[in-house]
Amino acid sequence: MPVTALAQGAKAPLSSWSDGDAKARIIDFVKAVTTEENADFVDLDNRIAVFDNDGTLWGEQPMYVQLAFVLDRVKALVPEHPEWQTTEPFKSVLSGDLNGVAASGERGLVELVAATHAGMTSEEFSKIVADWIAKARHPKLDKPYTSLIFQPMLEVIDYLKQNGFKVFIVSGGGIEFMRPWTDKVYGIPAENVIGSSIKTKYEVRDGKPVIIRLPEIDFIDDKAGKPVGINRFIGRQPIAAFGNSDGDFEMLEWTTSGSGRRLGLLVHHDDGEREYAYDRKSHFGRLDRGLDEGPKRGWTIASMKTDWKSIYPE
Amino acid sequence: MPVTALAQGAKAPLSSWSDGDAKARIIDFVKAVTTEENADFVDLDNRIAVFDNDGTLWGEQPMYVQLAFVLDRVKALVPEHPEWQTTEPFKSVLSGDLNGVAASGERGLVELVAATHAGMTSEEFSKIVADWIAKARHPKLDKPYTSLIFQPMLEVIDYLKQNGFKVFIVSGGGIEFMRPWTDKVYGIPAENVIGSSIKTKYEVRDGKPVIIRLPEIDFIDDKAGKPVGINRFIGRQPIAAFGNSDGDFEMLEWTTSGSGRRLGLLVHHDDGEREYAYDRKSHFGRLDRGLDEGPKRGWTIASMKTDWKSIYPE
Repeated sequence: MPVTALAQGAKAPLSSWSDGDAKARIIDFVKAVTTEENADFVDLDNRIAVFDNDGTLWGEQPMYVQLAFVLDRVKALVPEHPEWQTTEPFKSVLSGDLNGVAASGERGLVELVAATHAGMTSEEFSKIVADWIAKARHPKLDKPYTSLIFQPMLEVIDYLKQNGFKVFIVSGGGIEFMRPWTDKVYGIPAENVIGSSIKTKYEVRDGKPVIIRLPEIDFIDDKAGKPVGINRFIGRQPIAAFGNSDGDFEMLEWTTSGSGRRLGLLVHHDDGEREYAYDRKSHFGRLDRGLDEGPKRGWTIASMKTDWKSIYPE
Repeated sequence: MPVTALAQGAKAPLSSWSDGDAKARIIDFVKAVTTEENADFVDLDNRIAVFDNDGTLWGEQPMYVQLAFVLDRVKALVPEHPEWQTTEPFKSVLSGDLNGVAASGERGLVELVAATHAGMTSEEFSKIVADWIAKARHPKLDKPYTSLIFQPMLEVIDYLKQNGFKVFIVSGGGIEFMRPWTDKVYGIPAENVIGSSIKTKYEVRDGKPVIIRLPEIDFIDDKAGKPVGINRFIGRQPIAAFGNSDGDFEMLEWTTSGSGRRLGLLVHHDDGEREYAYDRKSHFGRLDRGLDEGPKRGWTIASMKTDWKSIYPE
């Protein structure tokens, strides 16, 4: 059964989206690139769509989920590292002083990543992440993070897949922090997940081959790094890109600069009642340049407040 | 139509393989991991198979195809670089002295890569490769390189795909040297191609966003680099790996070390009549350790001479 037939057979798409401009633009785009007689028709192989993760597919407030993971890991590991009690950035982490953590800058971040993400095998890290995400709960909403995913975006992913799109996550977050759960939570398998990474090396340990995680940043998949990551992992330009912050600007810029019909969409977190309201001044997921230039570039700004009938899955 | 049904509906697999041990092992493996009631059954998401390219899917004698590309590019670019006439490694390239090129070592190789693979956009490089491969011919067999691919291996790729496997190329060759043609030639799309790479950067040039190729090696996807590349791009351990040289040793070692049923296969180039005969002493695609240890590790050594009824597609 051809995917186009699947799509025709499927129930009305995007049911959690209000009947507004944003929903109409998504549907018009998909119809345009999947209708053979249409001048904008795109063959199956080139139907590539990319999604940011933090703030686009799930929440990023009051802090990135991966940062919550780092803080929990530091607390869990401090008995083996008493010196952390008195040295930054660990001291601030342990006293819950996020500004102190922020003040430690990139050096501090790298130290935290090294202390919590490196020094084990890839397999061991996956298990640490899987165990943590199964138990961790959002500090305010008191639910598992994996249940605080955005239903309207899940519907976009399904709608694109039904129409023959290959769907990828392109996140500033850690690639191996996402891969243990993205397939179960979003229906996006590990090989379709692109993210930031640390260096690794192959080694035969006690006769068992393993991938060792090293305390050294390899690639930051954010801002201008996103087109680079997409080119490296996918090898071609997407025709649709979905994000929510200025970290996604270059990804949308590159995607929508191609010839033919393109779609760029930014989720605007303007719903303090049902989720969070933030943009230009936020520490996490700042959206400033995108709000000003996005509309001029033909990008769709989706208002969480008015375009989304519901936020989370039932 | 489920992939298993597809497989059952398909004609007898591996028709270019002689009815010997190698063919039987491939079929036994696939039956074992795709039969639900079987203890070795593997779900669709984990049916990952990886293939080396040079010497495994196409020829690598008398030199790697990408090296022939480099030599042709140097000749094409020398008018703009008269100094190459008198400086190594370019001098040796222009005089056809491969030993001189080899003598220039890794530094020479990096210079050649920088001179022929960098300094243009990713899009421009893809076009250079596509134009070259459309015209270039094998020096001895006088046919396009893309027609000198191994029919028995194409049948393995198809057989695995029909049985729900996700198939990836994992090559020491350049990732952007392969991506322009792998889908057309092997039916393996760009995002399923893993290879060596140079650094790139994103830039907006005269208002047009582009990926610029930089004269700096980013990653060498060979030997112990292959498991690292697989872990980075695919995010999990394959259950089947196909290669032909010691550059594939760690890839097969890692793949076959996992729990459950695994398949590791090395193509042995022992057919000087129909292709080339080489192994322990070859400059390109040396196979030495694999010949000794492979059988002890349960890997299949496929003899091109006796296991393959035909070498190239009709």
